[in-house]
Amino acid sequence: MSSYNNEQIQQYLTNNQNKARLLVSCSDQPGIVSAISTFLFEQGANIVESSQYTTDPSEGTFFLRIVFESPGMKEKEEEIREAFNDIGEQFSMKWKLTFLSNLKKTAIFASKEVHCLRELLYQWESGDLMTDIALVISNHETGREIVESFGIPFYYIPANKDIRKEVEAEQLKLLEEYEVDVIVLARYMQILTPDFVAAHPSKIINIHHSFLPAFIGASPHKRAYERGVKLIGATSHYVTDDLDEGPIIEQDVIRVDHRNGVRDLKKKGRLIERSVLTRAVKWDIEDRVIVHENKTIVF
Amino acid sequence: MSSYNNEQIQQYLTNNQNKARLLVSCSDQPGIVSAISTFLFEQGANIVESSQYTTDPSEGTFFLRIVFESPGMKEKEEEIREAFNDIGEQFSMKWKLTFLSNLKKTAIFASKEVHCLRELLYQWESGDLMTDIALVISNHETGREIVESFGIPFYYIPANKDIRKEVEAEQLKLLEEYEVDVIVLARYMQILTPDFVAAHPSKIINIHHSFLPAFIGASPHKRAYERGVKLIGATSHYVTDDLDEGPIIEQDVIRVDHRNGVRDLKKKGRLIERSVLTRAVKWDIEDRVIVHENKTIVF
Amino acid sequence: MSSYNNEQIQQYLTNNQNKARLLVSCSDQPGIVSAISTFLFEQGANIVESSQYTTDPSEGTFFLRIVFESPGMKEKEEEIREAFNDIGEQFSMKWKLTFLSNLKKTAIFASKEVHCLRELLYQWESGDLMTDIALVISNHETGREIVESFGIPFYYIPANKDIRKEVEAEQLKLLEEYEVDVIVLARYMQILTPDFVAAHPSKIINIHHSFLPAFIGASPHKRAYERGVKLIGATSHYVTDDLDEGPIIEQDVIRVDHRNGVRDLKKKGRLIERSVLTRAVKWDIEDRVIVHENKTIVF
Amino acid sequence: MSSYNNEQIQQYLTNNQNKARLLVSCSDQPGIVSAISTFLFEQGANIVESSQYTTDPSEGTFFLRIVFESPGMKEKEEEIREAFNDIGEQFSMKWKLTFLSNLKKTAIFASKEVHCLRELLYQWESGDLMTDIALVISNHETGREIVESFGIPFYYIPANKDIRKEVEAEQLKLLEEYEVDVIVLARYMQILTPDFVAAHPSKIINIHHSFLPAFIGASPHKRAYERGVKLIGATSHYVTDDLDEGPIIEQDVIRVDHRNGVRDLKKKGRLIERSVLTRAVKWDIEDRVIVHENKTIVF
Repeated sequence: MSSYNNEQIQQYLTNNQNKARLLVSCSDQPGIVSAISTFLFEQGANIVESSQYTTDPSEGTFFLRIVFESPGMKEKEEEIREAFNDIGEQFSMKWKLTFLSNLKKTAIFASKEVHCLRELLYQWESGDLMTDIALVISNHETGREIVESFGIPFYYIPANKDIRKEVEAEQLKLLEEYEVDVIVLARYMQILTPDFVAAHPSKIINIHHSFLPAFIGASPHKRAYERGVKLIGATSHYVTDDLDEGPIIEQDVIRVDHRNGVRDLKKKGRLIERSVLTRAVKWDIEDRVIVHENKTIVF
Repeated sequence: MSSYNNEQIQQYLTNNQNKARLLVSCSDQPGIVSAISTFLFEQGANIVESSQYTTDPSEGTFFLRIVFESPGMKEKEEEIREAFNDIGEQFSMKWKLTFLSNLKKTAIFASKEVHCLRELLYQWESGDLMTDIALVISNHETGREIVESFGIPFYYIPANKDIRKEVEAEQLKLLEEYEVDVIVLARYMQILTPDFVAAHPSKIINIHHSFLPAFIGASPHKRAYERGVKLIGATSHYVTDDLDEGPIIEQDVIRVDHRNGVRDLKKKGRLIERSVLTRAVKWDIEDRVIVHENKTIVF
Repeated sequence: MSSYNNEQIQQYLTNNQNKARLLVSCSDQPGIVSAISTFLFEQGANIVESSQYTTDPSEGTFFLRIVFESPGMKEKEEEIREAFNDIGEQFSMKWKLTFLSNLKKTAIFASKEVHCLRELLYQWESGDLMTDIALVISNHETGREIVESFGIPFYYIPANKDIRKEVEAEQLKLLEEYEVDVIVLARYMQILTPDFVAAHPSKIINIHHSFLPAFIGASPHKRAYERGVKLIGATSHYVTDDLDEGPIIEQDVIRVDHRNGVRDLKKKGRLIERSVLTRAVKWDIEDRVIVHENKTIVF
Repeated sequence: MSSYNNEQIQQYLTNNQNKARLLVSCSDQPGIVSAISTFLFEQGANIVESSQYTTDPSEGTFFLRIVFESPGMKEKEEEIREAFNDIGEQFSMKWKLTFLSNLKKTAIFASKEVHCLRELLYQWESGDLMTDIALVISNHETGREIVESFGIPFYYIPANKDIRKEVEAEQLKLLEEYEVDVIVLARYMQILTPDFVAAHPSKIINIHHSFLPAFIGASPHKRAYERGVKLIGATSHYVTDDLDEGPIIEQDVIRVDHRNGVRDLKKKGRLIERSVLTRAVKWDIEDRVIVHENKTIVF
C-alpha cells in the first residue's frame, strides 16, 4: 500500500499511536463536557486539544472536537469505544471516535485538468495530508504518470453522461475493494447520480471554480469575465443532490483586473482551486468539519 | 465652501495647479499615442504618468490615461482644450480633460447606517479624497452632527418609495445648485428612478453589501448566513437601470466562520463596505475608471 | 459614566448578566478539564464556548478559555469565585474569572495622529468594543472634540522626554481615580518609563507602525520606503521594557508599490494600524489573549 | 531543446512573432514619449500596452515599458534596433528591446527542498512562464526525476563553502554553454561569491524565506517562531553582494498562530515561497522589472 512508503506518514503513525479524536454533536444540555472529560480522565487520557461550539446555549446544538492521548491506547481501542457508548446514549449524541493510527483511505476522482490532483499528491508527499491515498480514478489518462510515480494505483474509466450508471458501478466496486472513507472530486467535471451521492453522505468533497453562490453551474470563469468582477473565487463543499448547493467547507478569492481574459481567469483560478480544495480535504481528514443543516462547523 | 477650509486640499491645489489629466477611449489604430504625446510636447507639457490598455490591438478599443504638467497651465486651459479637439476628432475619440486645479464636486447620499459616510469624510479630511464634498443628503438625521462638524451642508429629505418622484425633484434641485459632478450612495438604501439614473450616466457610485453577483437584492447578509459562506463581500459599482447589475469598480471580501450570526456578518461587512466604497470613489475622482460595455478599466 | 449611555453596551450587559469567562494556565496534567467542567456542572452552569491549547501534552503548559452561563449568576459571584479557588490551588493555576456584567475600564493614550483613537471610539460606539472607555489622555488637543462628542472625559497632559516622570505621575493619578484595567497606546508616540511599564504587566497595548521585527524603532515608514519593500505592516503588542519587543497580539500588512512615497506609506499604514490595534484591544477585552514567554496565545 | 516541446510555448511563439517589448530608463525631460511613439508609428508598429513612471517629473528618472506589434517584425529586427539607437543616444537612455520570438533562457539552481523548483516547472508547463528552462543545476539529486520528466537537463554538482570557487567554475561553464539569461535560485541555500554575483547584475533572482528585512540570514522560521509573529513571509529579490539586501521584486505573507511550531511555519512558508518566487520570475521574464537605486519598479 502506497502510504506505507511515505516516510512522513510513517513517522506520523509512530508519533501518534496513542492518540484519538472524538467528534460530538447533540442537543445542548448541562453536563456534557463534564461527563466526557471525566470519562477521559478515568481512562487515563490527557486532553491535547479541544474546541467547542454551541449554536444557542441550553436550547441549541452542541458540537465538540477533542484530541486526547493515553498510553497503550492501541490495545484498548474497543474498550474505550464501548465505554463511551454509554455516554453517547445518555446524551443522544452523534459521535465519531477516530484512532490516529487508523489512517483514513481516500480516493481521488480526476479528469483532464490535473492541477488539483497534483497539489493533493504534493501535499500528501510533504506530510500535510495524513491519509492513505488508496487510488485515483480518472476519465482521462493525463494524470497517470504523476500518480504512478508515487506508487498509487491509477484507474482509467472513461465517463460521459450516457454511461453514468455503468461507470459508477465500476467506481463503486473499486471504492469497496479499497475500503475508501473519503472521495475527493479534484476537478472531476462529471455529475454523479443521486444514488451515488446518497450512498456517501458528507463523504464526497468537490471543488467548484467560483465563489459560490455566484456562478453556480457551468463556465463560471466565462461568466465572471462577462460580469466584470474584480475577484474570482473557488469553493470546496460536500456534494449533495443539489448541484453546487452542498455545505461549504472553504472558500477563497484572487484579484483579477480588466487586462485578464477568460484564459487568465482560468489560470489564476487554478492557483486558488488547488489550495482551497487541499485545505478542505485536510480539515475533513483531521475530523475538523461537522455538517449541520447544510452548513459546516470547522474547528 | 467647505473644501477650501481643508488644509490638505489647499496644499494639493497649490502643488498641482499646473497639472492635468487626459482620459481617452477610441477604436484602436496606429499613431494615437504618437499624436497625443507629440501634441503634449508641442504644448511644452511633461508626461508625469501614463497607462494604456487595448482590448484587442488594431481591432479593439484603445484606452489611455495620461497625467501631464506644463508651466503656466492655468492660463492656457481653453487653448489646450481647443487644440486637443482636433486630435479628438481625427481619431473619433471620447475624451475628458481635467485640470487638477478644478476640484470635482461630490454629493453623498446617506441614510441611517453612517459607517460609509463617516469613512468618506475621514479620508477626505486626511487628504485622501481630493474632491469638494459639496453636500450630504440623507433620509435620516443620524449623520447631521458629523457632517456639519466638517462645515459641510447637510440636507434631511425624508424618502420612501411612495414619494420617490418628489424626493428626487428636491435632490435634483440641490445637485444643480451645487453643480455636483459625482453622486455617492453611501448605503443610501433607496432605489432611484430610471429617469434619475439616466440623467447621471457613470456618475452615481453605489456600495452593495455582498460579493456581486452573489446575493443581488435585499438582505444579502441574511442570505449569506443561510448559505453558510466562509467569506462575505462588498461591491462598489456605477448605478444603472438594472439593480446591482452596473459596471463593477471594486470588490473585496472578509473571512467569517460558523460562530458568526447575521449580526456579526453585518459588523464585519461594514469594515469592507467602507474601504471598498472609498477606494472606488477615490479612483473615480482621480479619473482612473473608464466604463466599457458594462465593465470598468481601472488604471 | 460614558459607557452607560452607549445603547449597544447597555443591551450587551442586559443580555449577558448571567455569563462569565474563565481564563486558566498551569502545568499540564490529567484531570484539569474534568475538574473544571464538573465544578461548572455542579454550579448549574452551561458551557457556551471553550478553547483549549497545550504546548506539549503532559509536560508543557495548559491553557483554557471557557465562557459559561448560569441563571442568577449575578448573586453568587463571590461564591463561585471562592469555590473555584480550591481547584486553582489543587492544580497550581494562574486563573482569571470575569463576570461579563463587570465591564473593564479602558484608558486611551493618544497624541496628534488620531486615526487609531477615532477607530476605537467608532467601534466602541458600534458595539464592537465591550468596554467602558473611562478617559482619554493626550499630549495634544487634537482629539478633544471627537472624544468629548461621545461624552468621554479628555485630559490634555503635555509630554516630552524631559518631564516624563511628572507626566506619568499625573497619568497614574487619573488611572487610579478611574480604576482603569487596560491602557491602550493609540499612536501615543511617547516612551514610558520602566516603572510605569512594570506597574502594568500585560496591561498596556501598543500599536507599532511596522511589521515587527522589521523596522523596530523610529521612522519605520521612511525606512520601509528606502528598503523598497512591497508590503508594509502594523503590529499590536503588549508593552514591556524592551522597546517594540513585547508579546505580539496581532499583525497585518498592506500592499505598496514603486509609485508610493513615504507620505503614501503613512496613509496606507494608517488603514491597517487602526484595524490591527482595534482587533488586539477587542481580543484583550474579551479575555482571548494569554501571555506566555513573550508570546501570546489568542483564543 | 526542452521548451520547444512545450505546446503552450509553441503556441505563444506563433501568436507573438510580430511583437516586441521596449524597456527604457533615463533622466526625465520633455519629448521622450513623443519621440518613442512617433518612431514606432513610423515603423508601422501598433502599441499594445504601455506603462510609464517618473520619480520626479522634469528632474527625476523616467521609466517606460511598451509592448508593440508590427507585421513582418521578424524580418526587420536589426533595422528596428539600429534605428532606435539614435533615440537612445539622443536621450542618454538605458534601453532594452526584446523580440517576443526570442525566448529568454533560464537556469534554475536547486537543492534538497524542491517545492520552488517544482512550482516553476509546473507553471512553465502550464504556459505561465514563457521562458526556455535551459537546465537545472542542483547540489542534491532530489529533483532529478521531476526535472528529467520534463525533458530538461539536470546537472548534479555537489557544493559547499569550501569548494565554492570550483563549483562556480563548473556552473559558469554550463551557463555559458546554454547561453543563459536569467538565473533563479529556487531555495539553493548556497552563498555565491562576489565575483559570480558581479558577473550577473540584476540577473540572479533569489527567494528568501522571511518578510525581509525581518529575519535576514539563517533560520528565519525558527526566529519567527521565537519572536511569536502572527504572519510569516517570503521575499524574492535580485542577488547583490550584500546578503538578503538586494532589490526586492515581490513579497507576501501567510497567517500563523500560537499552535504552529517551527515545522508548521516551514510548511506554511513553502506555500508562499513558491508563489512569490514564481511571480518574481514571471515578471522578470516579461521585462516588467526595472532596478533603480536598490529598489524595483514593477510594471
